[in-house]
Order: sequence, then C-alpha cells, then structure tokens
Amino acid sequence: MSTTPDDAVRAYVEAHRAAFLDDLAAWLRIPSVSADPGRAGDVRRSAQWLVDKLQATGFVTAEVWETAGAPAVFAEWPSGDPEAPTVLVYGHHDVQPAALEDGWHSEPFEPRVHDGKLYARGAADDKGQVLFHTLGVRAHLAATGRTAPAVNLKLLIEGEEESGSPHFPDLVRSRADRLRCDAVIVSDTGMWSADTPTVCTGMRGLADCQIDLYGPDQDIHSGSFGGAVPNPAMEAARLAAGLHDADLRVAIPGFYDGVVELTDRERELFAELPFDEARWLRTAHSHATLGEAGFTTLERVWARPTAEVNGIGGGYQGPGGKTIVPASAQLKLSFRLVEGQDAEKIQQAVREWVAKRLPAGIRHEITFWGATRPCLTPLDHPALRSVVRAMGRAFDKPVRFTREGGSGPAADLRDVLGAPVLFLGISVPSDGWHAPNEKVELDLLMKGVESAAYLWADLAEHWKVPVAG
Amino acid sequence: MSTTPDDAVRAYVEAHRAAFLDDLAAWLRIPSVSADPGRAGDVRRSAQWLVDKLQATGFVTAEVWETAGAPAVFAEWPSGDPEAPTVLVYGHHDVQPAALEDGWHSEPFEPRVHDGKLYARGAADDKGQVLFHTLGVRAHLAATGRTAPAVNLKLLIEGEEESGSPHFPDLVRSRADRLRCDAVIVSDTGMWSADTPTVCTGMRGLADCQIDLYGPDQDIHSGSFGGAVPNPAMEAARLAAGLHDADLRVAIPGFYDGVVELTDRERELFAELPFDEARWLRTAHSHATLGEAGFTTLERVWARPTAEVNGIGGGYQGPGGKTIVPASAQLKLSFRLVEGQDAEKIQQAVREWVAKRLPAGIRHEITFWGATRPCLTPLDHPALRSVVRAMGRAFDKPVRFTREGGSGPAADLRDVLGAPVLFLGISVPSDGWHAPNEKVELDLLMKGVESAAYLWADLAEHWKVPVAG
Repeated sequence: MSTTPDDAVRAYVEAHRAAFLDDLAAWLRIPSVSADPGRAGDVRRSAQWLVDKLQATGFVTAEVWETAGAPAVFAEWPSGDPEAPTVLVYGHHDVQPAALEDGWHSEPFEPRVHDGKLYARGAADDKGQVLFHTLGVRAHLAATGRTAPAVNLKLLIEGEEESGSPHFPDLVRSRADRLRCDAVIVSDTGMWSADTPTVCTGMRGLADCQIDLYGPDQDIHSGSFGGAVPNPAMEAARLAAGLHDADLRVAIPGFYDGVVELTDRERELFAELPFDEARWLRTAHSHATLGEAGFTTLERVWARPTAEVNGIGGGYQGPGGKTIVPASAQLKLSFRLVEGQDAEKIQQAVREWVAKRLPAGIRHEITFWGATRPCLTPLDHPALRSVVRAMGRAFDKPVRFTREGGSGPAADLRDVLGAPVLFLGISVPSDGWHAPNEKVELDLLMKGVESAAYLWADLAEHWKVPVAG
Repeated sequence: MSTTPDDAVRAYVEAHRAAFLDDLAAWLRIPSVSADPGRAGDVRRSAQWLVDKLQATGFVTAEVWETAGAPAVFAEWPSGDPEAPTVLVYGHHDVQPAALEDGWHSEPFEPRVHDGKLYARGAADDKGQVLFHTLGVRAHLAATGRTAPAVNLKLLIEGEEESGSPHFPDLVRSRADRLRCDAVIVSDTGMWSADTPTVCTGMRGLADCQIDLYGPDQDIHSGSFGGAVPNPAMEAARLAAGLHDADLRVAIPGFYDGVVELTDRERELFAELPFDEARWLRTAHSHATLGEAGFTTLERVWARPTAEVNGIGGGYQGPGGKTIVPASAQLKLSFRLVEGQDAEKIQQAVREWVAKRLPAGIRHEITFWGATRPCLTPLDHPALRSVVRAMGRAFDKPVRFTREGGSGPAADLRDVLGAPVLFLGISVPSDGWHAPNEKVELDLLMKGVESAAYLWADLAEHWKVPVAG
C-alpha cells in the first residue's frame, strides 16, 4: 500500500461531507455538560444520539454503558478476520460548560460555520473528533470494498471526561473483557499546528499528594517563642525548596530510577518542530522559562519528570501582619512521571525523604491521591507507524512527533487493558478548548476522517498481532 | 540607704492592704474590653475611675487623654526638687475579652479571692500592676515623711494595649512635651517566678513584612507547563527556606550588622535562672526546641535576632489536589531585632536580598508594616540598679535578670522621649494573661506596692540626672 492519497477515500468523504457536518451540528446542539447536574438529561440524550448514529453507521453493537455518574457509549464492529488486530477508539461525548455571556460571538450550542470553521462548544473537544470515526470507517469500507472494517473496531466514548473521569477507571476495570484490544487510539488531542501535522507518542504520569505539618499545638507568639521552636510553615517551605537541586533536578533520592531517557533521535525530532518561545510563553500566560538544566522547554514539559508546588499554606494569610509561629502548614505537591518511573516507588521515596528532613517537634502526615502511570509508545511501534502513514496520506505532508505533558484517563486504559496507547487528533492550539468560541477547522476535520479511513487498512496490513491464547 | 526592708513601708502597706484590694476589685468590675466596640463605654468608665483614684491619691494632675480610639489616662505629681529625676510609669487600663463559658471558674468581671489569689480579668494584666503604684507612692510618702514624691512622677495608662495600641505612637508624639522624662518604668510585665524575682532589661524590636510574588497571569496547567516556567509558590518557599543557613543563622547579608552581642556576664546571669526545658516547652505548646546554633533557648528568644515565617500561602489550598502552577503566592515574615540593629537598614537589606533571589518571570512587591525598635538597658544603668535594689528590698532575695522576646509600645516611648525603658512587674507565668481564670498572687502584688515605694526614694538618692538646658 502506498502512502499517497487515495482517490476513492477522498471522493467518498467529499460526497458525504455535508451530511456529516449536519450530523455533527445536530450532536453539538445537545448541551451535554457533565459538570452541570441540571444537564444530566442532556448528557444522557447525547449518549443515546451517539448510539443511534453508530448503529446507523453499521456497528454491530452500540449501547449505553451506565456508570455511577454519566453514561458512556460502547460500540463494536468485528472484522470477521481472525488475524485482524483489535483497536479501541477512546473519546468523550460530554463538553465543558459554555454560555453566551462568557464572550461567545454566537450561541455556544447553536453551531455556526464561518470562514471554514465550525464554532460550537464541543466542536473540537471532543464531538468532532469522535464523530470523524463514523464517516472514516464508512470511507474505509467504500474504498476497500469491504463490508466490515479490516480491524476489529471498538469505541468507548465516556460521558464524564470534563468532570475528571471519576468513574472511568472503575468502568474500564469492570468491563475489561469487552474492551480487550491490541491498541488504544485516543481521539481527544491535537496537532502542533494546521501546517505541522503531528502524532503524540506519550503522556506523563502523575502522583500528587498533600503534606500536613504540625508544630505547636496552637499558634504561638513569635516574640515569646520565635527563633527557639520549629515552625511548620518554615518547614513546609524548606521541604518545597529542597525538592530541587541547583540544576533544578528533583533532589529526592531514587526519583530518576528507571527513567527512560530521551533518545538523540527524539530530541532531534522535537527540535525539528517550529517552536517559538515568545508564542509558547503567551500560551503559558508566563513571563519567562525556567526548568531543569540541559533540556529545552519542549523536552521539559513533554519528556522530563517534575516536582511542582500546586499549593502551600500555613499561618496567617489575612490582611496585615500577625506575629505568630503557626501551629500547622500544608503543602500540595504533584510529580509528573515519565516512562520507566514507578508511581508507587516514587510515593515511597517521597515519604522517606520527607520523614528524614523534618526536625524533632514537627509531626507530619502525607496523603497521596492515587497515581496515573505515564505512557510512551516507542517510535518504531508498528501501530504508531500506521498512524503516521495514515496521517501522512491524509495531510500529504511529513508527520512529526510530539508528546503531551499532562496525564489522562488514557493511561487507565493502557494499565487495565495492557495495550499501547496511540493518539490520533486533528485539533490545533487555536481551537479554544474550554474557552469561548471553541471551533474546529473543517478542512482539518475532514483530514481526520481521511486519516481514520486509511488507518484501519494500514493497521491490518502492517501489524500482525499474535493471536492470544 | 540600706537594701533591707523598711518597717515603715511595710506597716503602711499592711494597714492599707484591705482598702487597696477593695479599690482594685471595684476597678476590675468594669469590663474595659477595648477590642469590643460594645464595651467602649466601659473603657471610658475605667479611664474615669482611674482619674478619680489618682486624684484621691494626691496626683496634682490626673486627666483623660482622648485618642482616635479609646481614651488614655495621664497623671503627674511633681517632686518640688529641681534636681529630682522625672519618671514616667507606663501601663494600660483596658483588658482582654473574657466570658464565663471560655472556661472561667467564676465570673471574670466579678473578682474572687481564693487561696491568696485574686481571680478576675485584668487582675495581673494590667490593672493590678497599674494600681500598685497608687498605694506605692502613698507608702513612699508615709515612710519618708514627704508630702510629694522624691521623683517627678508621671503616669501614662493607655486604653488600647490589648487591641495593638493603634493610636499610641501618635499619642506619645503629640504629647511628647508633657511626657518628657528621664526614665520610663513599664509595669506591664512579669517575673521569672514567685521564688525568683527578676528585672527585665530589654525587649526585642520588630520589622515585619508581606512579600507578594506573581508568576503566570493566571493559574496554569501543571501538566502542560509545569517544569518549564517559574512557580511563585515555589519561589515563596525558596525565599523562606533561604532565610537561614545551616546553623539557623539569618542568611540575609548585613542582617547582623551592629548587633550588640550578649556579654559573658549576661550569659552567666541567664544561665543562673532555674530554666526547665520541659516546662518551657509546655508554655510554648511546642514539642522540641530548634534555633540558632551556639545559643541556649533563653538566649535565642531574649537576645538573638530572628527571621520567622508568620504565614505563607499560594495556589490551591482546598480539599484534594489541583494540578496547577499557581499565579501568585504570599509570604508574611517577621524579624525580631536586638539592640544595635537598625530597622530601616534591615528593611533595605531584605528588599535587596529578595530582589536578587527571584528568577526572571516572577514579579514581586514587599510591604513593610512599620518597625518597632529594640530597647536594652545596660546592666549598670543607675536607674536599673535602683529597680534591682527596690525589688531586692521588697522580696528580700537576690534579683536576677531577664529580657523579653516580644516587642511593645514601650519602645515607642523610648524612641520618642529618648529615655531608657525599665520594667517593674510582679506577675508570674501562671497568672494566665489572656487566658481563662487570670489571677494575681496577692503576696506578690503587695511586693509590687513595696517595690514602687522603695524605688522613688532610691532613684532620687542614687541617680543625679544632668539638668536639661
């Protein structure tokens, strides 16, 4: 199979573009805001709309999966070929809140097309990127003459992603049998830019905690006692300040154990991206860069583990001064993890490090709020090569590589299902996720449809998965 | 003049003890809580009660001095001797709030005598210690046969000390002419213990500030940007942690410039005090000592300058975690100062130190809330020798030396009036200042009366003050 565009796919996509956009607009009109209890009915309506749409598309199974919160949608379309790989597409059908008065130029739940862009809440995050798989699989069938996809295709579209996916890990664990797959394709991300199609190859993991420090049994007078007793606010500050060495490397013993370092090839690939620091800083709402010595900004946020203070508090925080030694203080830390780090070992290392650094007279408690594992797909993974070829054909451009600094529920899928996680997304940074006037670029959206159409054939052709058993 | 007790003073005090205690009880029944706006009338009634009492005692002048807040009382009784020193007694007639339900065993504003102790709010802090000067000066006159005190005696009894003396500096500055004196006697402190009479020789000064740090223009995602931009909560922690070196000495350049170090003699005198660390820790509600290397606990709190974190805050402080790089953070610091340190220079040193330590991308503001100068009276000051002899005669015991780690309005008196500040107090740590069941030991209270009686004669005899001109 060549990596050039496929006329049959393009013709099919073009012929069905208008109907596809009508469908998407209909779905976007359902304000499926998972964070708003008053919209619970709309979230359910959105799930049912998608089930109907997937059944109409040809999926053999399409059903609502209940959770303790908002419903997810599951669908399945077997290939019929016993050797075909099984692929699970992940996305979500819930959206962020939106209201005209937030600064929208038109009603957020009344889609509007202008200058090649479709404006509506959820256009890019994530309804547009979920729905392109429906037209994508139909184009795949039309171009190949098949009646079922070349891969065993499954979809899991959750309804609480914008609320932190509180029930998603449970859902995946309890339904692991039906979700079993050889690869997960996440369609809930973006590309570097419209001119630079990219594939994300990994996300960082996360371990975050709260450290409570207790000193005197009550706030005490800093004149009478200050300078002679330990101060928990000072000790919280010393812990935070001690997290890094002078090179801003994390100073906790064992923190870097097992870290899969960036290869020279990956560093070259990151460096090929048209990075503009001033522009990046505007996106970060920040006024300078600062980070681990020896790494670029992109390497720091995508591929290096970090320790960050998310919150610190202790003593008097009201107006004016109050001359006390406070009774307690609190520190909220998050550690971003990369491939090779073990979240449980990191937690243990943090616990031991904290216990050793505190002086007599300071009692402490540490609470970790679970952990999200990092995920990284090697550049030479056959499924990743397929995604790159599929996008390369759709965009007719070289496809470059990125990673994602954040941590997401995708890692739950990898952990529970034991399958690599790949990312196929066509959104661009200007799409305004979670912001007013969210939009999707229609040309890019259709490239997403095309990419999906090429992907299933390419995967089936190039990736022979050993039959389980 | 000998340092043995004086039968005439003792006889006079004994004869008038019952009436004196009746007077004190009457004053204690007035709930002069300056912090409670609903008690403003009682604070005024308390001031008027004292004016009447001072007039009845013989003071030539006794008047209410209005402030922008609660009224103070001023009284004056000239000696008639042009060579006599002028002494200003400082105290306060307002009290801390108190209510039976706070854990009092009887009504806080209905004085009760039990087992040699008088229980009431204000018994020790400070009405008892103000009032002993009335019987004290009468005993002085009775024992010496004089019709006016041997010193020019002035009293300034403020009405807002328990509310932080907000208008006291202004009052002292605007009335400096009438307050002019050669020494200030503060009767608002205590002794080491009932068995160990002591004189306080100094208080620490204070410079406190707030440092606001600003990083990103809004809270940003720690996954997308963490590890690559400066974090103001982390920088606040680094500032706080950088305040001290490994020996817990303050690490700000110039901080110790000019510090009057403890002499060997003073360290010996402190060491003579029966210090019990376990007991001190209970008073401090703390579980261990920690402070500058090379100094004892008493030296640390009485005679060493310190840097303390009174409050720290930044980022997310609610329940659970939130993976952000916060937009801002705040640090409240207080510096206790000792003789020889210049508060303005310390402020400047802190400003320069902070500015140098912050990375690009972190903007900051520092606000200092004024400064209280330290005060220290040399052990060989003639007025201090008089206080020691007077207390020695009253208690018939060696009088030892302490200092006070806190900072008070007394320093305003020294600064504005240019007079040394001495401390004559008979309260003991178990008296429960600001706590339920505040009390004063009746025997100690009468020793205070006696001390005041001896003091005026001793001062006039031993301290020849150069006549101003």
